[in-house]
Amino acid sequence: MLNIQRLSTTDSDFNARLDALLAWDSVSDTAVQQRVDEIIQQVRSQGDVALCDYTARFDGWQPANGAALELPLERLRQALTAIPAAQREALDLAASRIRTYAEHQRLQSWDFKDTDGTLLGQKITPLDRVGLYVPGGKAAYPSSVLMNAIPAKVAGVGELIMVVPTPRGELNELVLAAAAIAGVDRVFALGGAQAIAALAYGTETVPAVDKVVGPGNIYVATAKRAVFGQVGIDMVAGPSEILILCDSQTDPDWIAMDLFSQAEHDEDAQSILVSWDAAYLERVLASIERLLPTMERREIITTALTTRGALILARDQDDAVMVANRIAPEHLELSVADPMALAEKVRHAGAIFMGRHTAEALGDYCAGPNHVLPTSRTARFSSPLGVYDFQKRSSLIMASPTGAARLAGTASDLARGEGLTAHARSAELRGNAP
Amino acid sequence: MLNIQRLSTTDSDFNARLDALLAWDSVSDTAVQQRVDEIIQQVRSQGDVALCDYTARFDGWQPANGAALELPLERLRQALTAIPAAQREALDLAASRIRTYAEHQRLQSWDFKDTDGTLLGQKITPLDRVGLYVPGGKAAYPSSVLMNAIPAKVAGVGELIMVVPTPRGELNELVLAAAAIAGVDRVFALGGAQAIAALAYGTETVPAVDKVVGPGNIYVATAKRAVFGQVGIDMVAGPSEILILCDSQTDPDWIAMDLFSQAEHDEDAQSILVSWDAAYLERVLASIERLLPTMERREIITTALTTRGALILARDQDDAVMVANRIAPEHLELSVADPMALAEKVRHAGAIFMGRHTAEALGDYCAGPNHVLPTSRTARFSSPLGVYDFQKRSSLIMASPTGAARLAGTASDLARGEGLTAHARSAELRGNAP
Repeated sequence: MLNIQRLSTTDSDFNARLDALLAWDSVSDTAVQQRVDEIIQQVRSQGDVALCDYTARFDGWQPANGAALELPLERLRQALTAIPAAQREALDLAASRIRTYAEHQRLQSWDFKDTDGTLLGQKITPLDRVGLYVPGGKAAYPSSVLMNAIPAKVAGVGELIMVVPTPRGELNELVLAAAAIAGVDRVFALGGAQAIAALAYGTETVPAVDKVVGPGNIYVATAKRAVFGQVGIDMVAGPSEILILCDSQTDPDWIAMDLFSQAEHDEDAQSILVSWDAAYLERVLASIERLLPTMERREIITTALTTRGALILARDQDDAVMVANRIAPEHLELSVADPMALAEKVRHAGAIFMGRHTAEALGDYCAGPNHVLPTSRTARFSSPLGVYDFQKRSSLIMASPTGAARLAGTASDLARGEGLTAHARSAELRGNAP
Repeated sequence: MLNIQRLSTTDSDFNARLDALLAWDSVSDTAVQQRVDEIIQQVRSQGDVALCDYTARFDGWQPANGAALELPLERLRQALTAIPAAQREALDLAASRIRTYAEHQRLQSWDFKDTDGTLLGQKITPLDRVGLYVPGGKAAYPSSVLMNAIPAKVAGVGELIMVVPTPRGELNELVLAAAAIAGVDRVFALGGAQAIAALAYGTETVPAVDKVVGPGNIYVATAKRAVFGQVGIDMVAGPSEILILCDSQTDPDWIAMDLFSQAEHDEDAQSILVSWDAAYLERVLASIERLLPTMERREIITTALTTRGALILARDQDDAVMVANRIAPEHLELSVADPMALAEKVRHAGAIFMGRHTAEALGDYCAGPNHVLPTSRTARFSSPLGVYDFQKRSSLIMASPTGAARLAGTASDLARGEGLTAHARSAELRGNAP
C-alpha cells in the first residue's frame, strides 16, 4: 500500500503537519554561490574567452571562438521542417492559443487631465532586449520555449536572445522548432551560470539584455539571483505543485492521473488532494494504487507522492477553500459541480483549473494561459509570467501653469516639513511665475 | 568655480565617461550580510524577546514586552490633530491626488470564451497583508508614508502594517499623521533588520505579512533581499537621480533649482542636465554658482554635484533623447517647447515631467503619481510603485467538454514529445469522455 500522508483539518496538529509538508528551502549553499560568483567575474573580465572555456569544461565541446557559440536562425528553420508533422501542428496550435491569451494581457498607456488642466498618465513601453534561458538535456521542454518567448514578443520586446546548453554539441530539435515558431531573434549554445552572466553583462559576441527569464538548475537560479539589479529576472521557481479540490463526483481515475501528472515532473514535486468526502479519498487512493504500476515514470511518481504528496479530509467545501488559500498553490484544480462559485472564494493560486474536464495538463501545453507560475506559496504575492513582465510603466506629469501654481503651495509646505528646501524653492519658482 | 563634470556626446570617450558617472554598486558587504542573517535567525527563533532586545540595543529604549512595541491607532489620530493646520491640509490634498491617480492603476479581472466554449481569463486579487517600513530619525518622510500606503489601500490590501524605529522613544508627528490619513491598520515601533524579519516571519505580536515595501538603510535593504521569496519585496532603491533635457528656453534659475532639489537628498544623489545649446549650459552653471550659497543644504548639494553631477552637451534634441534612453533615469524632466512629442521618443524613465512648469518636486509630493521609482538604470525593466504591486493575477481555465476533447490531442502530442506520459494520459482521459 502506498504510504501517502493522510491529514484531516480537524486534527489538532493539522497546521503543523501542513507547514511541514509545504516547507521548501530554496537557498543555495555557500559553495554553489562562490562558484557562481567566480564564473560571473570570469565572464565579466574575460568575455568570450571565458564562455568558450566553460563550454569546453561543462558542456564537453570546444567552440573555436565566440562566434562559434551562435546558432544561425537557418538551423532553427531546419528543425521546424525536420520534426514530425503532428508535433509541428501541435506546436503551432499551442503557440496560436498562447498568443491569443497573451494579447489580452497587454498593458495600454493612459492619461487624464485634472480640473486645472494638468495631465497625469502612465506610458507603457516594452523592454528593449530580453534573454531566455532554456535548459538542455533531459529537462528541455519546447513548451517552455513557447511560454516564455511568446509573451515577450507580444509585449513588443525588440530582441529576444535565447541561450541553451548543448552537451557534447547535442541539439534538441523540438526546442529549436519551438524557438522558430515563437520568433526568437538570436540563439547561443550556452548554458549554466556563464550563460546568465553573458546575458547580464554582455561579451564581445553575446549582447547584454535588460531582463533574463526561464528555468534552470541550481547554478542558473543562483546566477539569476546574483545578477538581479543589473538586469531584471523572473521568479526563481521551486518544485511544481498541484492542489486538487474535489466534491467526490469526478471519476477517481481522472484525479489520480492529475496527481501523477504533477508528481512525474521530479521527486520534489507536490501533489495534494482535498475532499470533504472521506470515502472518495479512499476511492482515489485505490485508483492511484491500481494505475501507478502502469505509469512510465512510476519511480519518480512514487517518491514524489510518498515524500511530498497528501490526501486531506476537510469538513466541507468552505473548509477546503481555506486550505487552498493557506497553501496558495501553483496549480489549483476545482473538480466540483459549480467551479465558478468556488473560484470566487479563492484568494491565492497561480492558475485555477475549473470543472471536471479541465485537466491541469491542458494548461501546461495549449489552453493559452502561461505555465510559468508562482510556486512555494509565492502566489500570495506574485503572478503568472505574462506580457506585463516584458512591459514597464513610466509616470507622466505635465502641469498646466495654473496647476503648477496651485500645487506649488502644497509641495512647498510638505517639503519644508521634511527639511528639503531646494524642493520647496523649485516648486515655488513656478508658483510665482506668470 | 564649481567643479562639475562637463561632457559632450561628440567626445571620443563619452560612453566610457558616462558609464563611470552612472556606475553604482549596491552590493552590501559580507559583514553586513552576516549581521543581518544573524538578526533574522534570532527573530525567527526568539520572536518578541529578540525584538525587545534589539530595540533596547539599537534604538536605545527597552520595551516591557512585545505588546509594548505597538503604537495604538489613537496615537496616530492624536498626531493628526497636533500638527499645524497648513501641514494637515497639504497632507490631505496630497493624499487625495495620490488616491485619484492610484485608482486609475487598479487592475481588473477579465475573461473570454473561445469558439469551443472554453473560458480563459485572469482573476485579480489584492494581497492579504502588507508591511510598510518607514525610516526613523532624519530621513523620516511623511510623503513616503502616503506614497507607499495609499496604493496598497486602493488595491484592497486587507491589513497594512507599518513599522518605524523610534530612537530613544522619539516619534515623528508628521509621519504618524500621514499614517492616519493613509489608513494604516497597525503600527509597531520597530526598525532595522529586526523589523523586516518580524514582518517576514511573524512573532507572537507582529503578524507575518505577504510583502514588505518601503525604503531603509543598508541593513534594511540587505534584510529585504534576504527574506525575498518568503515574502514579496519592492525594489531595493539606489540613490535618487534626475536627468533634465532642456532646449535653452527655460529660466536657468529654475533648472539650477531642479538640479539642487535632487542633489540635496544626499551626497550620492545624481543631477544631470543635457542640452544642445552650449551657451545655455553656461547660463545654468552661472545660476548654480549664484544660487548655491543661498541653499540651506549647500554642503550636501555641492558634494553631490561635484562627485556625481554633470552638464552634457548633445548634438541636437534627438541626440539628447538617446542619452536619456541610455541613462534610463528615475526622474526625467523635459523642459522643452513640445514635451509631448519628445516624450514619445523616451523608452526608459521612471517618471517623465513634461514642460517648463512641471518641477520634479511636484511629483515628489502631490502631483499624484508615485515618488517610489526605479533607480540606477532599472527603469529599463521596472516600473514605479503602484496599485498593481499590491494586486496579483491568477489564470482561469474552464474547458468545455468539446474544448477538452479538442485540446487533449494537442496536449498529448506535446507531452509525449517531452516524455511526460502522465500529462498525456490525464488529458486523454477527458478527451475520450462522453
